[in-house]
Amino acid sequence: MEIALLGGTGDIGQGLALRCARDTDHSVVIGSRDADKAEQKANEYYSSLKETGVTPGIAGYSNETAADSAEVVVVSVPPEYASQTVETVAPVLGEDDVLVSPAVQMSRDASGFHYDPPETGSVAEAIDRAAPDDVPVVSAFQNLAAGALSGLENDLKADVVVTGDDSEAKQTVMALAEDIDGLRALDGGPLANTGVVESVTPLLINLAMNNDGMHDIGVRFE
Amino acid sequence: MEIALLGGTGDIGQGLALRCARDTDHSVVIGSRDADKAEQKANEYYSSLKETGVTPGIAGYSNETAADSAEVVVVSVPPEYASQTVETVAPVLGEDDVLVSPAVQMSRDASGFHYDPPETGSVAEAIDRAAPDDVPVVSAFQNLAAGALSGLENDLKADVVVTGDDSEAKQTVMALAEDIDGLRALDGGPLANTGVVESVTPLLINLAMNNDGMHDIGVRFE
Repeated sequence: MEIALLGGTGDIGQGLALRCARDTDHSVVIGSRDADKAEQKANEYYSSLKETGVTPGIAGYSNETAADSAEVVVVSVPPEYASQTVETVAPVLGEDDVLVSPAVQMSRDASGFHYDPPETGSVAEAIDRAAPDDVPVVSAFQNLAAGALSGLENDLKADVVVTGDDSEAKQTVMALAEDIDGLRALDGGPLANTGVVESVTPLLINLAMNNDGMHDIGVRFE
Repeated sequence: MEIALLGGTGDIGQGLALRCARDTDHSVVIGSRDADKAEQKANEYYSSLKETGVTPGIAGYSNETAADSAEVVVVSVPPEYASQTVETVAPVLGEDDVLVSPAVQMSRDASGFHYDPPETGSVAEAIDRAAPDDVPVVSAFQNLAAGALSGLENDLKADVVVTGDDSEAKQTVMALAEDIDGLRALDGGPLANTGVVESVTPLLINLAMNNDGMHDIGVRFE
C-alpha cells in the first residue's frame, strides 16, 4: 500500500511520514504544493531514517502526483487549506482510495487554546464535503503531538481515535495506526462524531501549557 | 472541610459522595430539592460505606441547607438545572466557598453523542454567570464515568482536568481530586478553557459504544 502525506513537509506530516516509513510495510510519498520542496523534504526524511538503520521507500512530489499513486491520502495541511487541497487532488482520487483527516482548527486567546471548527462541524466533515462522493473520508491522528511523532527516539504510547462512515476505509486506517509502534486505534463511530475527537487537541496543548512535564503529551482511554 | 453534593442523589453525585467520604478526611453532605430524598440517599450511602469498613460522616438535606454548611459546593445536577440550582443556593454562598461544575451538556443522535454546550460556552461558565460575583467557580470531574465512581470495588486510574480563574479555589479542588484514590488532578487553565474538557465526555461515551471492553472508561494524559 502507498501512503501519501499531502502537506507532508509540515510538522504533523513529517512525524507521520517518518513513523509510517519506519514502522510499517507501506511506502510513503510526501506531497506539497511545491514539488521541489517535497523532494527535498523526502530526502531529509530518508537521511533521518537511514540513521536509525532503516532504508525507507520515501519520495516527494506535487500533491496531485502524490495522491495519484497512493491508496491512503492523508490531508496533513493546515486546516484552512484542507478543503482546497482536496479539491486540487479530487480528479486523481477514486472509490478505492481513502482520504484521512488529521487536522484540527483552533483559536487562541489569553486563556489558552479553544476548539474552533469550521461550519461543517469538523475539519473531517469539511474534507468530506470537498471530496468526490465516492471517496471515503476517515479522521485519525489528530491527538498526536507532532514533536513526539517526529522525534523517532520517543517511544509512543497513545491512542488514535478513528471516525468514518465507510467501515472498510475505517478498518484500513485503524490497521495503519496499529502498525505504528506504540499506537492503539479506537473506533470513535461515524464521521459526524469527529468534533469531540478534534477538540481533544486544544485540551492537550492547554495541559502542556499549565502543567510541568507534560510537553508533547498524548491521550489514553482506559 | 465540608463538601456538599447538590443533586447528590443522582449518579455522578453518588459516585463523588462515596469516594469523598471513603478516601478523604472531609465530611460530605448530600443536597437535593427534596430534603427527605437527600436524607434517604445519605442513609443508603452510609450503609454502602459501612460495608466497606468505613464509618463516614454523611448526611442529607435540602440543597440550600447543604450548601450553607459546606466550603466546597459541587453542582452535580443535570446541566439544564445547573444555573437554576446555583441561583437557589446563591444567598448562602460567600467568597470562602467554591462552586464546582462537573456536568456536561450533550445531545444524542443516530451517530452517537455530541457536545452541545450552553451559549455561555460551557456548563461551568453558565454556573459562573449564575453565581454571585465573589464566589469562585471551578470545573472538575466531568470525565469520570459515574458507574466506575459509584462501584467502590473499582480501582480508579484516571485524570481530572481542573479549570478555574481563582487559583486558591482551583488548588482546593485539585487537592480534593488528588485525595480520591486513583485520581490525578491536572490544571487545564482558566475557566474559559472548560469547553474542551467537557467535550471529552461525549467522546468517552462514543468510545464505550464502539469498542469492546471500554465500558465506564476514563481518560489519561501522558
